[in-house]
Amino acid sequence: MSKRVLIIGGVAGGASVAARVRRLDEQAEVTMFERGPYVSFSNCALPFFLSRMVPQSDDLVLMCPEQFAKQYNINAKVHSEVIDVKPNEHKVVVKNVLTGETYEEEYDKLFFSPGANPIMPKSIKGIDSKHVFPVRNVPDIVKIDNYIHDNKVTDVAVVGGGFIGIEVMENLTHAGIKVSLIEAADQIMTPYDKDMAQILHKEIIDNNVDLIVSDALAEIKEDCVITANGKKVKAQLVIVAIGVVPEVSLAKKIGIELGQTGGIKVDHNFRTNIKDIYAVGDAIEYYCSLTRRPSRLTLAGPAQRQARSAADNMYGRTIQNKGGIGSSCVKIFELNAANTGLNEKQCLAAGIKYDYVYLIPGDSVGIIPSSNPLHVKLVFEVPTGKILGCQAIGKGNADKRADVIAAMITMGGTLDDLKELELCYSPIFSTAKDPLNHAALVALNVMNGEFKQVKVSEVRDIYENGGYIIDVREPNEYAQGHIKNAVNIPMSQFRQRLDEIPKDKAVYVHCRSAQRSYNVARALGQLGFDNIYNISGSYMGICYNQYFEDVTLKRTKIVTEYNFK
Amino acid sequence: MSKRVLIIGGVAGGASVAARVRRLDEQAEVTMFERGPYVSFSNCALPFFLSRMVPQSDDLVLMCPEQFAKQYNINAKVHSEVIDVKPNEHKVVVKNVLTGETYEEEYDKLFFSPGANPIMPKSIKGIDSKHVFPVRNVPDIVKIDNYIHDNKVTDVAVVGGGFIGIEVMENLTHAGIKVSLIEAADQIMTPYDKDMAQILHKEIIDNNVDLIVSDALAEIKEDCVITANGKKVKAQLVIVAIGVVPEVSLAKKIGIELGQTGGIKVDHNFRTNIKDIYAVGDAIEYYCSLTRRPSRLTLAGPAQRQARSAADNMYGRTIQNKGGIGSSCVKIFELNAANTGLNEKQCLAAGIKYDYVYLIPGDSVGIIPSSNPLHVKLVFEVPTGKILGCQAIGKGNADKRADVIAAMITMGGTLDDLKELELCYSPIFSTAKDPLNHAALVALNVMNGEFKQVKVSEVRDIYENGGYIIDVREPNEYAQGHIKNAVNIPMSQFRQRLDEIPKDKAVYVHCRSAQRSYNVARALGQLGFDNIYNISGSYMGICYNQYFEDVTLKRTKIVTEYNFK
Repeated sequence: MSKRVLIIGGVAGGASVAARVRRLDEQAEVTMFERGPYVSFSNCALPFFLSRMVPQSDDLVLMCPEQFAKQYNINAKVHSEVIDVKPNEHKVVVKNVLTGETYEEEYDKLFFSPGANPIMPKSIKGIDSKHVFPVRNVPDIVKIDNYIHDNKVTDVAVVGGGFIGIEVMENLTHAGIKVSLIEAADQIMTPYDKDMAQILHKEIIDNNVDLIVSDALAEIKEDCVITANGKKVKAQLVIVAIGVVPEVSLAKKIGIELGQTGGIKVDHNFRTNIKDIYAVGDAIEYYCSLTRRPSRLTLAGPAQRQARSAADNMYGRTIQNKGGIGSSCVKIFELNAANTGLNEKQCLAAGIKYDYVYLIPGDSVGIIPSSNPLHVKLVFEVPTGKILGCQAIGKGNADKRADVIAAMITMGGTLDDLKELELCYSPIFSTAKDPLNHAALVALNVMNGEFKQVKVSEVRDIYENGGYIIDVREPNEYAQGHIKNAVNIPMSQFRQRLDEIPKDKAVYVHCRSAQRSYNVARALGQLGFDNIYNISGSYMGICYNQYFEDVTLKRTKIVTEYNFK
Repeated sequence: MSKRVLIIGGVAGGASVAARVRRLDEQAEVTMFERGPYVSFSNCALPFFLSRMVPQSDDLVLMCPEQFAKQYNINAKVHSEVIDVKPNEHKVVVKNVLTGETYEEEYDKLFFSPGANPIMPKSIKGIDSKHVFPVRNVPDIVKIDNYIHDNKVTDVAVVGGGFIGIEVMENLTHAGIKVSLIEAADQIMTPYDKDMAQILHKEIIDNNVDLIVSDALAEIKEDCVITANGKKVKAQLVIVAIGVVPEVSLAKKIGIELGQTGGIKVDHNFRTNIKDIYAVGDAIEYYCSLTRRPSRLTLAGPAQRQARSAADNMYGRTIQNKGGIGSSCVKIFELNAANTGLNEKQCLAAGIKYDYVYLIPGDSVGIIPSSNPLHVKLVFEVPTGKILGCQAIGKGNADKRADVIAAMITMGGTLDDLKELELCYSPIFSTAKDPLNHAALVALNVMNGEFKQVKVSEVRDIYENGGYIIDVREPNEYAQGHIKNAVNIPMSQFRQRLDEIPKDKAVYVHCRSAQRSYNVARALGQLGFDNIYNISGSYMGICYNQYFEDVTLKRTKIVTEYNFK
């Protein structure tokens, strides 16, 4: 007898389960229930409709129910909400949300892939207004787009600096809208540490977005929003993208166990505590293989892989469950940002002993016109040297670097492995010593104590406390902008000017990208200077950090000029 | 007492040794001898001067002797050829090539990094003419450029379809020159298998280069060259880039042992058989960790890593020597091509049992305007499923995919590891199931016998032998071009048209990119059809293969129309 497989949810996880079951079993009866009007749409591409990079909202729908039926013999039912499950009878109760009609269907196996819901805090006054929208599905994005055009909206407040908020911000900006981006934390994009997020902050500010951090949305009015700090921000439309919570209402109702993070608890085969019920995607709690703790991850790639694994398990196949490490990327105006694994904040929270390097090599050979600086932050475990995470930001292929590191992390790679890694090189694509080889080498030197470093974020305090800072760039570079009071001893002169360098106190060395200062720091270390610190990220990193402090938080400038664009 | 380190050769390997020694030992006396006029120039960027992508020839020189002296306290001597070594006395004999003067210098450690020489076969009549050039260094490229401008050259023959030949071809084309590219083998770019090279052939032909393969250069005349097959090719200038041989004349002279490949034999610490003499770079024989055989590799990245390792060994540091896998990339007009590890030809030559998959997924989500097909060929070991190599070609980020595979190969990754790999995803950068995840899944299905495949290169024979070919694309796609006599049974109809599919003979299924045909092949397998073959690479792959056959070799067309641009 053919197997009856029912699936709750028809997007990344659900559609993947359906297609995989079909490939494994041509005879299975597969039905997918989606309460919205579309199955298999590209959530991730929703914001790109606002700028018409994706020209039609229909383009966002990858497969219609007719295609599922014809090509895969899968029954995709839209406007169909599963409102109850009777596990003992192996039945679901389905409601047609258009007609209100309900009916029951039997299953042999049931898959939960209901996704997650946008958080819309009732505590915010005005959150229920008609000009306030989440971004969850095709109807949402169409409603936003229509509202903008029907009401000639000129100013939008986007609340939340995560992936959705950022992409909506950029696409609205491209559509000619003045956007304010409001983020309650002191930085956007939590996968990045603050020093890296500062680079993103600058890019956003440079593109005429009104960026507000460390301030929450407090009230929504008809033509403006008010922040917790009392700032009034003009906005005829508000998009709330402050996060999502797993959609677990039905799961809870029928006794499916939840995990400590609030997601559906699954075993290593993606089975829930109820027999014959599986769960995958944004609604579940997943295992982070790096922190060795349960976590949540709302990404399409893992949802698809979980779906495939769950389907495989249903057919008795052995599956791998490696947990997850979390890899993602985002374009923010001219910058590409990508990350994988753990950042500093996550290491600290998980109590993992780590260190890191931050360097800014060229993403390709400097004489090639398309070459650009690439900010690379590599986080590694101490004392093993195992690679834990990477954050890469630049105009070039940051995603390539995060993907390579994702592979290295997954395979248990160390800094020694990374320094030897043979990556593709031609002057257009990279440098002979790839930025990642370079990062590993510097990291090994840090771990081996061959030089000491301080963070860019510490430089202001060092300056304010009268720290002795040496700028080893050439005089013409120094003249174009430098840290106030920094002593200019160019790399080409330092061996002749050793007597100017104090031995009785800490000396902080920097150049443009920390490469020359690293060489100087190592030489000084061998020349009897024991208290030399290389400034990680160097002048470029410092500028990015201070820029934001200065421009947005109105703190005192310590750089005399910004010439890092 | 400070250590005296002498280095023969001042480019990738030599300059890296020098810089590394300085970091390890501020007191060392380091001298680098280069017989040419420049140290530390970018070999790899030489061709880009011809199109002025690199505007000035001076830009190709990364560091001048003065900078080495000032910044690193390194003595870089140009026009200085080491003509002899006296190992027992720890001395080298140096000749100033401008004055003819010779002198001796003592060393504690000596590094050979002499590089490789272009092959200029004396057997070719006219090879010594003044309008025939190799491309090895800055003076070469300047001479070529001057000759072109002084003589108003309009037609150039580039001989050799390797990296240098290809890059010279492209840059000359951009400079408005009509280029003929002559390659003796039946394909250009040996790191690629022929099915993948066909894609590159098409790109070259489409860019108005006269591509001649399977035909060698026989004679060079004043205004043309003559091939072995008697073809006359207009050319007022000839560039010979048919390969390089390790520069081992000095090494041989002083009794340094060579390996079976003709390169200098080194131990795992890059030491030669003579005490205190190291060798690195293009001149040495390296160990291929995949074939477990000695090999040669003329790439800048490995040269730099070897240099660092050799310097480290000299200072008593433990070094890793993982051998090499060979990763490289090249831009050919609008295409990016990247490869790592072994291709089919190399597996066959080494007697390694392998299989492969060739698929053409989108490099990013199809609805994003920048999305393009990415040709991915993944080679894996049978029966272990260990990943052996990858070739990726497309307008998008092929290099990213090769780099990720390089990491997986290096870490001993299998198809199971690759299918689970969490790579960065946003619609602009990739697909939720990355092309590499996808390749691993298909490869596992091949290895597990869940479907059978034939190569695109076999399709002509299948066609000519009257094989039964089913095209499962939709009728509108079929109408735009298809294999003659292929039966159109769209994926949306095949379940209703099973009686049209023969059970008594082999059936070959394809669609556009092999994704739909893969699903159909699996379903048919479950529906009692035991002799179904998916055509690897599918219609796009077939077109690329046949295109070249048709256009260049003038064989009968079997596709009615080309619509794959």
